[in-house]
Amino acid sequence: MSLSINQWTIKPASMPDAVAAVKANGLEAIGLWRQNVAAHGLAETAALVRREGLRVSTLCRGGFLTAADPDARAAAIRDNEDAIREAVALGTQTVVLVVGGLLDGEKDLVATRRRVTENIAAIAPFAEAEGVKLAIEPLHPMFAADRAVVSTLDQALDIAEEVGSDHVGAVVDTYHVWWDPNLSAAIARAGRLGKLFSYQVCDWNLPLAAEPLHSRGYMGDGFIDFPTITRLVAATGYDDDIESEIFNEDIWAEPPAEAVATVKRRYDALVAPHL
Amino acid sequence: MSLSINQWTIKPASMPDAVAAVKANGLEAIGLWRQNVAAHGLAETAALVRREGLRVSTLCRGGFLTAADPDARAAAIRDNEDAIREAVALGTQTVVLVVGGLLDGEKDLVATRRRVTENIAAIAPFAEAEGVKLAIEPLHPMFAADRAVVSTLDQALDIAEEVGSDHVGAVVDTYHVWWDPNLSAAIARAGRLGKLFSYQVCDWNLPLAAEPLHSRGYMGDGFIDFPTITRLVAATGYDDDIESEIFNEDIWAEPPAEAVATVKRRYDALVAPHL
Repeated sequence: MSLSINQWTIKPASMPDAVAAVKANGLEAIGLWRQNVAAHGLAETAALVRREGLRVSTLCRGGFLTAADPDARAAAIRDNEDAIREAVALGTQTVVLVVGGLLDGEKDLVATRRRVTENIAAIAPFAEAEGVKLAIEPLHPMFAADRAVVSTLDQALDIAEEVGSDHVGAVVDTYHVWWDPNLSAAIARAGRLGKLFSYQVCDWNLPLAAEPLHSRGYMGDGFIDFPTITRLVAATGYDDDIESEIFNEDIWAEPPAEAVATVKRRYDALVAPHL
Repeated sequence: MSLSINQWTIKPASMPDAVAAVKANGLEAIGLWRQNVAAHGLAETAALVRREGLRVSTLCRGGFLTAADPDARAAAIRDNEDAIREAVALGTQTVVLVVGGLLDGEKDLVATRRRVTENIAAIAPFAEAEGVKLAIEPLHPMFAADRAVVSTLDQALDIAEEVGSDHVGAVVDTYHVWWDPNLSAAIARAGRLGKLFSYQVCDWNLPLAAEPLHSRGYMGDGFIDFPTITRLVAATGYDDDIESEIFNEDIWAEPPAEAVATVKRRYDALVAPHL
């Protein structure tokens, strides 16, 4: 269990530069994004991380599974199966799923969530066969309309339980779930179910950025109680990498190795002592 | 039960102009804000709404009850008692509570929420004596850090149950709770407990405004399923006024009577048929 840097924390860096920035800080793991992997080449990326001795903590992202019409649904399922194949090639066990928001003009959240569950169930057998875990990421409720109709950890776990595969679980990303009055019980529940597949850390900054997705901050810059949440996660027996995924335009303007160094300092101060 | 216009939907209007805009549209109720009441004068406002035959659906707002030090706590309790007295003078039964966010530098949500519960409990006897209901408003989780550590209807009901007064309950404001995967059960629970004190309608618009508070929209302009939520509220037996409280800079630029006319049209189309 150690700190992993999600490559979008240093988004402007090329794949080799991102790997170099992680290695320069003595870290052992990186989280990758599919479009960056595709741009650098899947085989090339797999060879690069292997050569550098890095683990790939997660692959972002599958999901977008709210489609209603049969063709769109089949395309979404195929795309998720591709993500699973890419995960296998990269040697990571975990694909993060961002489930998608409401379709254009649709307002029925209940029906949308039902389709998400059905579509994850359709992918689960392939994930099992390939030995890849599907980690449903609840997104902050401010993204419920446009990015993810799964807004709480309990809801992600409800879906995972309904699907009934031990390869379907959830992500705890502090930015998305820190406010949840049921967070403590939900993390314990994820642990009991063996469904806590990824713990991700970054802070909630205010004021919100013009693009709210980019309001994520270095741990300690915002409002989140990392010691408390980290202890809750540790109490479940979680022993996988802990990824830091920060989208922040100020951080993207820093040299990648310096940004990674700051993440590592904050992790060492606010997260590591509570594991 | 009918449509009430919260005066901040037409924020630039003076108190007399706001009352006139509501009356011009044939409506019977208005929701008031304490600072506007103070600016116009409490006795003058009470006389105005009485003369014009309007009900005051709610008074906004009490709350901000997260104080830790004894002096600040006593001041917050006194301020809420003032709000209760003002409600009595205005002839409304309901004071809306926005509970407040984290104190400067504090990150302990659990302790903050505990103080909110204790402080509401301290106010409840006075509210009971004055016959005024305290309606805890869960705010959207994007306001958890800075405005309200109560983020869900269930959480507001948990606090109301713990306080144990029939004068402490909750607000359902669609903007704040529409995303909640447990909303249907929570509204039914509020009804069973006799704690659904106010139903408020406005839409969730995207992109978020630079000031996210101002992303509220006319019903129908955003993503919220008003027929479904309204039927859930109606099924509880809710029979009080339904307030529309919209903060939106474009709407504030419209003539007040026209803005109220639009709210009324949208209410007649999306809310009233489902009561």
